[in-house]
Amino acid sequence: MKVGFLQFKPVFGDKVVNLKKVRSLLDFISADIVVLPELFNTGYLFTEKKELAELAEEIPGETTQFLMGISREKDMHIVAGMPERAKNKFFNSTLLIYPNGRYKIYRKIHLFCEEKFFFNIGDIPFKVYRIGRVKIGMLICFDWIFPEAARSLALSGAQIICHPSNLVLPYCQSAMVTRAIENRIFIITVNRIGREKRGGKELKFTGMSQIVAPSGKVLYRAGKSEEIVKIVEIRPEDADNKKITDYNDVIKDRRPNFYRKIVQ
Amino acid sequence: MKVGFLQFKPVFGDKVVNLKKVRSLLDFISADIVVLPELFNTGYLFTEKKELAELAEEIPGETTQFLMGISREKDMHIVAGMPERAKNKFFNSTLLIYPNGRYKIYRKIHLFCEEKFFFNIGDIPFKVYRIGRVKIGMLICFDWIFPEAARSLALSGAQIICHPSNLVLPYCQSAMVTRAIENRIFIITVNRIGREKRGGKELKFTGMSQIVAPSGKVLYRAGKSEEIVKIVEIRPEDADNKKITDYNDVIKDRRPNFYRKIVQ
Repeated sequence: MKVGFLQFKPVFGDKVVNLKKVRSLLDFISADIVVLPELFNTGYLFTEKKELAELAEEIPGETTQFLMGISREKDMHIVAGMPERAKNKFFNSTLLIYPNGRYKIYRKIHLFCEEKFFFNIGDIPFKVYRIGRVKIGMLICFDWIFPEAARSLALSGAQIICHPSNLVLPYCQSAMVTRAIENRIFIITVNRIGREKRGGKELKFTGMSQIVAPSGKVLYRAGKSEEIVKIVEIRPEDADNKKITDYNDVIKDRRPNFYRKIVQ
Repeated sequence: MKVGFLQFKPVFGDKVVNLKKVRSLLDFISADIVVLPELFNTGYLFTEKKELAELAEEIPGETTQFLMGISREKDMHIVAGMPERAKNKFFNSTLLIYPNGRYKIYRKIHLFCEEKFFFNIGDIPFKVYRIGRVKIGMLICFDWIFPEAARSLALSGAQIICHPSNLVLPYCQSAMVTRAIENRIFIITVNRIGREKRGGKELKFTGMSQIVAPSGKVLYRAGKSEEIVKIVEIRPEDADNKKITDYNDVIKDRRPNFYRKIVQ
């Protein structure tokens, strides 16, 4: 199975430019799944809710149709982050788009920093979706810091976690190696690059999008500031082997009776 | 508060030598808490249950008395791993010893590899103990791979996790940085050094004992093969601040209703 990511620099508020860029970068590749960054079509640094209201779209909407077009044309699943409007609510969402036009939505559950002022908290529990026989989970950016998030997906059978991000803290790339090992799953973390300077604030995004194997091996890690599409070949079924030694299985060896009640 | 660790090479089966070594290394230091490796008094690589039965001790027993003597004399808490006999059962245990003679036991819950042939699975849930106003949790070695373990202690208020280990896999030191960040706690991981070759098997222990701050900063990391006692000054109350940004608290921002039921 060919999976990969597209690391680039969205231009804030300019969907025409961002969609055009994505189309041109995807034109030359073939893959089963390609993952785009969080809020890939709009950029990240909203300064007021009005901006978000103008740029967010219902799903399906213009950006969904754009992604569906590429997905169908290239027979490729696309996972991509975008701001979603749903009635009076706004979510930091990720879409999983199937070549046949079906789609699934994950709405970010753990909002980062000032996102809390603009977005609603996701209202759909972590779920696993099938692409043929392969089981896919989605996380968005800051979800990385909560081990319960990746664990929930792994316990539900996910083999690959697609993880669109706009990372500014320096910890996630290394932490996702730990998440891959502790759950024995593949993780595709896709970050954006560049800076955004808006409303007296400036953010620098850290790039280094990466694909990690269940063994913890980093199959590929991009540079901090390069625009790049990268596809690697993986065997999703490797994630079904939860053994880290002949006698240890990272899921079966859990001892929930002795853990503090984490669902409370 | 001064906390630290003693990284050394226990000699398999030779308690006299191991206890003497520990005494000589601790003679020159003063600290509030010092942590010794897993199975520090006996070594690690048991080849048959009979060996374990001969070397394990009831608690309190000879090794407990030895540690109590140093603890009282130096007014220092000691956390140390040793094989425990309890009626017909054998546990891979860690003792927390108070200068006043009190002690607490943690029995390893996640057994690694062939330990499963010799040891019983720990039968005491993760608990937090007080040293004055400071709250301490204990993990042993392979517990590191289960995020629920450190999380259980953090949810119970632990500020410092003492983590005696005999590490052979290469992942733990990096993973414990993630555990420190995701829980915003101090973690003292104490490894042994050297090799053990017994019964046709050989293990190489990876050293690199370390103390990590709630920020994820590695306050100190020892070499791979040096014998060393290291003490650092920390403020345990730093672990009470769970904020990673002005608007994010790694404990309060958890969304248990949306996690897969982890206690099941």
